[in-house]
Amino acid sequence: MSSPNPPVPFTADDYRARMARAVEAAAEAGLAGLLVAPGPDLDHLTGYRPTAITERLTVLVLTAGQEPVLVVPALEAPDAEQAAGAPALTLRDWTDGKDPYAITAPLLAADGRFGISDNAWAMHLLGIQQLLPDTSYTSLTEALPMLRAVKDARELERLTAAGAAADATYGEILKVRFSGRSETDVAADLSALLKHFGHSQVDFTVVGSGPNGANPHHEAGERVIERGDMVVLDFGGLKHGYGSDTSRTVHVGEPTAEEQRVHDIVREAQEAGCRAVRPGVSCQEIDRAARAVITEFGYGERFIHRTGHGIGVTTHEPPYMIEGEEQPLVPGMCFSVEPGVYLPGRYGVRIEDIVTVTEDGGRRLNTTSRELAIVE
Amino acid sequence: MSSPNPPVPFTADDYRARMARAVEAAAEAGLAGLLVAPGPDLDHLTGYRPTAITERLTVLVLTAGQEPVLVVPALEAPDAEQAAGAPALTLRDWTDGKDPYAITAPLLAADGRFGISDNAWAMHLLGIQQLLPDTSYTSLTEALPMLRAVKDARELERLTAAGAAADATYGEILKVRFSGRSETDVAADLSALLKHFGHSQVDFTVVGSGPNGANPHHEAGERVIERGDMVVLDFGGLKHGYGSDTSRTVHVGEPTAEEQRVHDIVREAQEAGCRAVRPGVSCQEIDRAARAVITEFGYGERFIHRTGHGIGVTTHEPPYMIEGEEQPLVPGMCFSVEPGVYLPGRYGVRIEDIVTVTEDGGRRLNTTSRELAIVE
Repeated sequence: MSSPNPPVPFTADDYRARMARAVEAAAEAGLAGLLVAPGPDLDHLTGYRPTAITERLTVLVLTAGQEPVLVVPALEAPDAEQAAGAPALTLRDWTDGKDPYAITAPLLAADGRFGISDNAWAMHLLGIQQLLPDTSYTSLTEALPMLRAVKDARELERLTAAGAAADATYGEILKVRFSGRSETDVAADLSALLKHFGHSQVDFTVVGSGPNGANPHHEAGERVIERGDMVVLDFGGLKHGYGSDTSRTVHVGEPTAEEQRVHDIVREAQEAGCRAVRPGVSCQEIDRAARAVITEFGYGERFIHRTGHGIGVTTHEPPYMIEGEEQPLVPGMCFSVEPGVYLPGRYGVRIEDIVTVTEDGGRRLNTTSRELAIVE
Repeated sequence: MSSPNPPVPFTADDYRARMARAVEAAAEAGLAGLLVAPGPDLDHLTGYRPTAITERLTVLVLTAGQEPVLVVPALEAPDAEQAAGAPALTLRDWTDGKDPYAITAPLLAADGRFGISDNAWAMHLLGIQQLLPDTSYTSLTEALPMLRAVKDARELERLTAAGAAADATYGEILKVRFSGRSETDVAADLSALLKHFGHSQVDFTVVGSGPNGANPHHEAGERVIERGDMVVLDFGGLKHGYGSDTSRTVHVGEPTAEEQRVHDIVREAQEAGCRAVRPGVSCQEIDRAARAVITEFGYGERFIHRTGHGIGVTTHEPPYMIEGEEQPLVPGMCFSVEPGVYLPGRYGVRIEDIVTVTEDGGRRLNTTSRELAIVE
């Protein structure tokens, strides 16, 4: 399905503003600047996505009082120049055989402390550390975890559209046959539906039937789904560059009383997590709210992952809803609330919505029923 | 096409031997051990490929006198246990909310120097550096560039099969129509052919027609190929886990005398590069041999990348055929020889084969004609 209203493209001014905010945030965090590697940070700040991430150094250097500089391999420079944010930065290219760290180092204060993208290659960090032994570094997630976390109105529009597409996918998947088909068959249906509803990229299509559902990172395998199976569905990807991620657990035919009860507990936990969302509450409180319900009903040991993660230009980013994360929620943040219970060798249940923080609470971007759906 | 003879799977003993050799090589390089991140290094040493590379720490710790330990997130442990190399190592899992660096640090000598995978996340390196401030690190490419470079007989079998599949692809692509079709259409043909001939993964299908061919990292775009175009084709991926990567430049209809001449120069340069291959010769000599021909004919400034790169479980890895790389060639190494000439705004020419070092010279794994082919 081609979307009837594709979003307005981001402009060089959008990127210029994002880079300026990043420099400000860096200064507030006591950093001399930021080193931004290819991946979501660079995408967010410049709109540039290299066709491949290789061992060749590409890095955006952001420092106060200096125009943004993108160090880029010469043979990738023509691509970089096409990025929407390119007019807002200076390209500094380097040719194979030259030392890219020697080009980067003079852009940095020799004794500064810098934030660096989590996923920057260790090799590149070591290359710069060697030339500038008195600099120090901290990961962007640690130093500026909220760099991409608070979404502006136009980003929220995109996340809402991605969520609606995921909901439409769930609505359709309830109509397909589960029993007698393999998990990968149902996963292929999910993938096709996400694309039909406008996703350009499918990141995951988990179909965890019966005992496979008890492994929260099981994707989809050759197991043939049977009548009587619980089936965890967890699917998402990118639509117009922004993510969807939702989970529902369905049952093939009528559930047993215990299955229904475990599902009810997870549903109540997920409800409690969502209800706890409002500005100023810490991320760990969302985890605690959901976890308390599951623990109360005796399944605390079987909820073996954190409650949620942020979503934006990736389907998996800060902030994390996890014990120990004291970051207060801010309007515009978007993240998953996805408690689960996993019974090894038997089945699993997970329910997940994306929630955005509003001025006075939270709003779900996924709004399909969270009741245990019966499928064929 | 399902391959008639799928290769024998690697065993836990294969991986045990590879890890033992890596520990030995580390000791010879003066290292206390190795930190191996998800990606090709981990794949090569353990057969484990996480379904996604996330911010959660997964790291293989290899040190002398200690069994290999794989630190892995608890919810990915069931997948890790399925890896072919799992019986050769100890899994140490950690649960969301715990500090994975606190689990990793005790496995390392507090004042040791360690090699770390190039593509390990900077965030993880910083996390370990913080707990063990007296350790030091060097990238695996710098410390042990040859960790994966010398292929054994069974690996070479796989690379040979991948090269043959790429050659079959080239043979078929010469039969398709180019003029009047977009680059992406021809790229889709290349992709389908690679898969038809047994590739499980297509990494790139460059179709650089006319002026697009002058950008060596152009992939394929909407440009419609015209009669009179030079077209650079560069395609490859993985077959049975090992890479192919080959380039040929074709012409739609008869070339001009200048086009033919530039192609002849690149062909002679590529021939010179391949002829220079033999044990003991340094990598940079391969680059020099190819570059000398192009320079001699006045196009030195238009050969804007290195001459080649290694290939194995990835399509792009050490050793690099580049000025300054003094590593001597060793029998079993496999790499590309791919000189090119790029005339901005006009066209490009590149010719590439994978070559393996034999006891007394080199052997190409791509054997299709390197003459300028005329296509329709």
